[in-house]
Amino acid sequence: MSNHPRTGSPRTATLTAAVIFAAAAQLYAVGAPGAAAVVETAKKPLTGAQILAASAPSDWRPLDPHNTLYMELPTGRVIIELAPQFAPHHAANLEALAREGYFDGLWIMRAQDNYVVQWGDPDAKKAIHKAQRTLPAEFERPLRDLTLTRLPDPDTYAPVTGFVEDFPAAADPSVGRAWLTHCYGMVGAGRDNDVDSGGGTELYVVIGQAPRHLDRNITLLGRVVQGMDLLAVMPRGSGAMGFYEHPAERTVIKSVRVAADVPESERTQLEVLRTDTPTFAAYLEARRNRREEWFKVPAGRIDVCNLSVPSRLRASAAAPK
Amino acid sequence: MSNHPRTGSPRTATLTAAVIFAAAAQLYAVGAPGAAAVVETAKKPLTGAQILAASAPSDWRPLDPHNTLYMELPTGRVIIELAPQFAPHHAANLEALAREGYFDGLWIMRAQDNYVVQWGDPDAKKAIHKAQRTLPAEFERPLRDLTLTRLPDPDTYAPVTGFVEDFPAAADPSVGRAWLTHCYGMVGAGRDNDVDSGGGTELYVVIGQAPRHLDRNITLLGRVVQGMDLLAVMPRGSGAMGFYEHPAERTVIKSVRVAADVPESERTQLEVLRTDTPTFAAYLEARRNRREEWFKVPAGRIDVCNLSVPSRLRASAAAPK
Repeated sequence: MSNHPRTGSPRTATLTAAVIFAAAAQLYAVGAPGAAAVVETAKKPLTGAQILAASAPSDWRPLDPHNTLYMELPTGRVIIELAPQFAPHHAANLEALAREGYFDGLWIMRAQDNYVVQWGDPDAKKAIHKAQRTLPAEFERPLRDLTLTRLPDPDTYAPVTGFVEDFPAAADPSVGRAWLTHCYGMVGAGRDNDVDSGGGTELYVVIGQAPRHLDRNITLLGRVVQGMDLLAVMPRGSGAMGFYEHPAERTVIKSVRVAADVPESERTQLEVLRTDTPTFAAYLEARRNRREEWFKVPAGRIDVCNLSVPSRLRASAAAPK
Repeated sequence: MSNHPRTGSPRTATLTAAVIFAAAAQLYAVGAPGAAAVVETAKKPLTGAQILAASAPSDWRPLDPHNTLYMELPTGRVIIELAPQFAPHHAANLEALAREGYFDGLWIMRAQDNYVVQWGDPDAKKAIHKAQRTLPAEFERPLRDLTLTRLPDPDTYAPVTGFVEDFPAAADPSVGRAWLTHCYGMVGAGRDNDVDSGGGTELYVVIGQAPRHLDRNITLLGRVVQGMDLLAVMPRGSGAMGFYEHPAERTVIKSVRVAADVPESERTQLEVLRTDTPTFAAYLEARRNRREEWFKVPAGRIDVCNLSVPSRLRASAAAPK
């Protein structure tokens, strides 16, 4: 098996915490000229995979089952983490929609290549009981209300980018506003021309190059933490904007449930790397400057949409109870 | 059919050339502060779709059949335009491989979500006759040898980005070098750790967020102009780095042919928008600041990987001969 672009060594290593913290400490130099040179002076900089392998349990945060949705497709489970930090009313409405079974039996009805996969009710007729059909837009939030781990590199679209917990975000400190960014796997609430015409009854997920021109134009409300491999392979629709022209082309949604409502034994125990830790800082630097042997010219930079915050099954989930 | 993020109006319009040139003329202000305001003063700025609908035949360039490959999959034809401007030896070798039938009966053997789909000989055993198995890397070219249509916006990874004909590219004028960028649909030659271990016997295509950290680390040699919808839906492989673990999971390649070797009646008559025209300048501006009613906050910027140069079937191809 030869001749392929590689993503990093699948090997893991057992390393001491001291080594990790040394790697993380270098990070405080990033953004300054010569940062790459500082990293190169380390005896043996760790790769991203090595940093994760040596992380502490406290570097990880379990998904909150009250902010997590399971969408069950015929091919498996898609796990969506909601972002109430940015879209509290949409997140609450999504939970209400899930709890009244709104999505059960509806369909994935659109797949536009290098853009979005979308699901909901193609006829917009299904009754809604306690949830809302539309909500005021939630495009931005006050930056002061959020803890943003900033990236040191320039971005085409925004003055500042980074992560709020594990969500990719951008901000304009000059006006004190922050917003989620349309990276691969981000989930939003479709709308019509009226900015307040969305609400979550139709959802889309980004399946290609980040359509950042949608930022602040439509409400993002979460991200797919597991299951993008199921959504991204949906056959592209032949209709305008990738809509399926024939009902038989749609994929049925078996159910959408709030994880907290699913028996614990049936939950997927995922955890995500905390982005406010030295381990994340070290990981970020290892992704800005790849240390695997395959790489010859380290980029020295990273786009916010090129760093997917790592997630994994919790170790305890694999142990007998 | 409501509540969806839109990509632009599918409507077209008949417009005079004067209107188009007026729109293009505004473009000379881009990059300067207030450029967006200049555009807003136009009576009725055209959308991207309107600009393309009103383009002149001379704004388009037919694909050169000598630089075009047809990869026939069970689901249809993938059309790859080679980039001899950047990788002359790889492009020539790809044509030699195609002409000796190297790829015929081989497989798509890897699909890693949000990264690449890859094809070739999983056992690296198939005989090669006149073509080369490996070639020296072609990562960069002298900028002076290329005509680069520059984008006005900042890029995370490179000092300058833009297009060389329809290929997305980056450059560092301070050292006089240019290179192709790893945007969605770009095709490269897989390699091992040795930079000169590629050559084109294994090819990959980008199917997700642009992995720009691969730029200048591996030889890009072309782009998929048609058929990404067939490649991007390949089931993701469950093996390391998305390789298929069982041969039955692979998709067979019926054939790869140089378009010039295919009878003209069986060719797909594609043409691409010329990027050195006022029409492209107007189209670029319409993509930087979306004018469709749906958009509320124009981005005012665009990433080189967010502007796919338009292609279409040649009008003459639809007419009887």
